[in-house]
Amino acid sequence: MKTEGLSINLATVRHQYDLKTGVEALVKHGIRGVSPWREHVQAVGMTEAARIITSNGMKVTGYCRGGLFGGADAAGQQALIDDNKRMIDEGAAIGADCLVMIGGGMAPGSRDIKTARGRYLDGMAAILPHARACGVALAVEPLHPMYAADRGCISLLSEAIDICEQLGEGSGVAIDAYHLWWDPDLENQITRAKGKILAHHICDWLVPTKDMLLDRGMMGDGVIDLPRIRRMVEAAGFTGYQEVEIFSAENWWKRPGDEVIRTCIERYNTVC
Amino acid sequence: MKTEGLSINLATVRHQYDLKTGVEALVKHGIRGVSPWREHVQAVGMTEAARIITSNGMKVTGYCRGGLFGGADAAGQQALIDDNKRMIDEGAAIGADCLVMIGGGMAPGSRDIKTARGRYLDGMAAILPHARACGVALAVEPLHPMYAADRGCISLLSEAIDICEQLGEGSGVAIDAYHLWWDPDLENQITRAKGKILAHHICDWLVPTKDMLLDRGMMGDGVIDLPRIRRMVEAAGFTGYQEVEIFSAENWWKRPGDEVIRTCIERYNTVC
Repeated sequence: MKTEGLSINLATVRHQYDLKTGVEALVKHGIRGVSPWREHVQAVGMTEAARIITSNGMKVTGYCRGGLFGGADAAGQQALIDDNKRMIDEGAAIGADCLVMIGGGMAPGSRDIKTARGRYLDGMAAILPHARACGVALAVEPLHPMYAADRGCISLLSEAIDICEQLGEGSGVAIDAYHLWWDPDLENQITRAKGKILAHHICDWLVPTKDMLLDRGMMGDGVIDLPRIRRMVEAAGFTGYQEVEIFSAENWWKRPGDEVIRTCIERYNTVC
Repeated sequence: MKTEGLSINLATVRHQYDLKTGVEALVKHGIRGVSPWREHVQAVGMTEAARIITSNGMKVTGYCRGGLFGGADAAGQQALIDDNKRMIDEGAAIGADCLVMIGGGMAPGSRDIKTARGRYLDGMAAILPHARACGVALAVEPLHPMYAADRGCISLLSEAIDICEQLGEGSGVAIDAYHLWWDPDLENQITRAKGKILAHHICDWLVPTKDMLLDRGMMGDGVIDLPRIRRMVEAAGFTGYQEVEIFSAENWWKRPGDEVIRTCIERYNTVC
């Protein structure tokens, strides 16, 4: 079965593999795209992480995850700026196509999501020059509105595009089907994102969803019309990988990694 | 403390009261607004329900809930149209300001939310003449996007207003802070809803939210800036009640009804 154009976000097999064993498992199945998290890279260090990725001929479709400026106060904002700059260095070291930058929630005790959104924009603007200098693109990833309070104050693709228009060169968007599938304006906004799409994430929305964070589904097991979204993304000129990102504490994280990867390949061929 | 302008949706005290004991408990606390569900009315019949409400001098700020056309097939659609017409009769009998009409999810096995939205519009158009004849307004209630798959395919206030513009006279919107607080375009859309706002529901978004359906918070216990939304709704000309609607299986549904009502009044005065 085809594996070209398929990338696996290592969160999908978080409990089965580390960076080295994860990449090796993907290679064994013929998959050449991977998206690691900072925990994977920091566990072995940038240099070794880069060696693992390069020696296995892997394409890094994204590096997860930064941003999170929404909940910061002034001191916290500077710490986050510094940390995000380190993430840019790490992303450059492993040759990441982009860094995935989520909004973060509101500051503890705050009920002011406008301020959170403003802090996100400010934080992104503060790190963008370093990202440009390192040749790493920043992908604004809108998260599902159910995460707006405590995880991702940027909810809509329209907001993400607005932010990119303010940030300019070196920024773009990550389009994750899980977060955006329900948006009645999705087609218009994907069209509007033309030239700015840096990543395309896939998984499925389960009915019922038993946990707001850790019950995402394998493609085909839920209700998202993934081919429709893929067509929109391709029509907007995106030619990159489809990256599978599944948080699934009670199902896929408990299965053998080999089975998870085989299932991703099978569904990529039959569903997506 | 002030109780004027406060309404309690009986779902908030679902496990404590039926229609009669619920209305009597509200009256005891000086509350004159109530929003019953069909289960409350059907348990005693329309005539007795109307008597309970009228004899206690209650204002019915909404009648919950109908619509749900999104998941229907052709036969199911006709059955839903018939059932929604009966709901209109019930709503008219109890003197409801409006009927709360949610989208419903997608049909079982479907991944086509556009079709679900189309069915909702068609269903609403089919029952609107009967609603007009009975003098009962239909309130399109957008639900949080986390319910789009299986409960409410109408997610955004902008969609609800679009639907009202197509339906015309006799339709309007219900603005529930829980469903809409995160929307970056909320202020614009509430302004646009001027003259169409039929209901204003309040509760709070808890962090963390432990259950997608049954873990709504008491006003003040979460992150929603309720006064800001109230100001927007009032600036758009709404002069009706604030209606408390809290689904809370593990907290408020387990407390004495008297305590729940007292807390609603207290928070209405200090938070909203």
